[in-house]
Amino acid sequence: MSNPTAAMIVIGDEILSGRTRDSNMHHLAGQLTEAGIDLKEVRMIGDERGTIIAAVQAMSVVYDYVFTSGGIGPTHDDITADCIAAAFDAHIDVRDDARAILAAHYAKSGTELNTARLRMARIPDGAELIDNPVSAAPGFKIGNVHVMAGVPSVFHAMVASVLPTLTGGAPLISKTMRIDRGEGDIAGPLGALAEAYPMLSIGSYPFQKDGKYGAHIVIRGNDEGQIAAALTKLEAAFS
Amino acid sequence: MSNPTAAMIVIGDEILSGRTRDSNMHHLAGQLTEAGIDLKEVRMIGDERGTIIAAVQAMSVVYDYVFTSGGIGPTHDDITADCIAAAFDAHIDVRDDARAILAAHYAKSGTELNTARLRMARIPDGAELIDNPVSAAPGFKIGNVHVMAGVPSVFHAMVASVLPTLTGGAPLISKTMRIDRGEGDIAGPLGALAEAYPMLSIGSYPFQKDGKYGAHIVIRGNDEGQIAAALTKLEAAFS
Repeated sequence: MSNPTAAMIVIGDEILSGRTRDSNMHHLAGQLTEAGIDLKEVRMIGDERGTIIAAVQAMSVVYDYVFTSGGIGPTHDDITADCIAAAFDAHIDVRDDARAILAAHYAKSGTELNTARLRMARIPDGAELIDNPVSAAPGFKIGNVHVMAGVPSVFHAMVASVLPTLTGGAPLISKTMRIDRGEGDIAGPLGALAEAYPMLSIGSYPFQKDGKYGAHIVIRGNDEGQIAAALTKLEAAFS
Repeated sequence: MSNPTAAMIVIGDEILSGRTRDSNMHHLAGQLTEAGIDLKEVRMIGDERGTIIAAVQAMSVVYDYVFTSGGIGPTHDDITADCIAAAFDAHIDVRDDARAILAAHYAKSGTELNTARLRMARIPDGAELIDNPVSAAPGFKIGNVHVMAGVPSVFHAMVASVLPTLTGGAPLISKTMRIDRGEGDIAGPLGALAEAYPMLSIGSYPFQKDGKYGAHIVIRGNDEGQIAAALTKLEAAFS
């Protein structure tokens, strides 16, 4: 029983320079986990044409779903849409359906739909638009790649638009138990537990608080009964 | 004048499931930028042997420096050290120098240096230890790969230990100007500016605050004079 797999590509020099702290990855990760889709890999790369094309081509053949974040605005450094088109060898230009969305949006505020804003209507042939209820300019989906904005509020809205269109798997069940001992004391019994339950993923995430060591033990899997049994053994080992 | 390049590999199922929000990437990015080292790519991957080995091998031949975060603790799911050794085809076992560090550390608190804790002294042959002033268990460097802990306080301390050993380039100079107009109005003049200064990286990072649109324009480069000239032109264009 294996879930669909996914990968994410976070695009933007500002992330790699440390100027901006990415938060889209963490948001998408949580949403996919809830939907029963396993996020397997994230790549953060700069605004470089060759790099973006190579990452999209490499990841779209390996994973069921690919999601990108960043680089679809109106300025010269927004090159993602053109790179995605190139990755799929698709023609790209201002498309009528996207232009109509922008025209209606900017008409409301009396803002000119100038050349720069029209760049946001550049959509590859054959792509489906992704709804953007925040600022209108759409994302798009081509093949298995979902191309979304980097601004967190817009990214979140686009993820919400996309999620109902994805085929999820069995939602991962996750139980956490906190143990107030150092990982070095926990490791032996925990390793034995992991061996006894090969279908479960058992992780240990250490913390240090007020000078004391402890760890959160997280047991994940699809079988509620197995998880409950493993938790009972874990409690017995450390009570 | 090109700076040394770097890549980072963030290792851990808990990041990809959305349970834990990674903060090490943002920290390292800022530190490398200050040191004049260009972070070009980050990969976030799970605790899977084949995936870790493949990522280390692929990235260590492309970039000057590689940094990893996560998976070097005492529990069964801490497999990074063994994977790194495999990636370099190096023998790995408990090493005397690392064991001595752990023995001295645990002797202070009367804690037993048991089998699990000894796992943290597993270091590949030929690797140099990375000092861990927070919790003693060392990281290590093999080839151009720096292997560090995932716990943020320990990761930060290890980065501080490593930074003086790296050869940096010209520190990137970065100037930011805020423009309180929509990106669609900024894009035209900004594109012209980017064309006029091909040696500078000029980025536009939009924001929306209290219903108003604006963007931070970030001009980056190594030549202070060029940056100042570009800033002057930018101010003139939007005053």
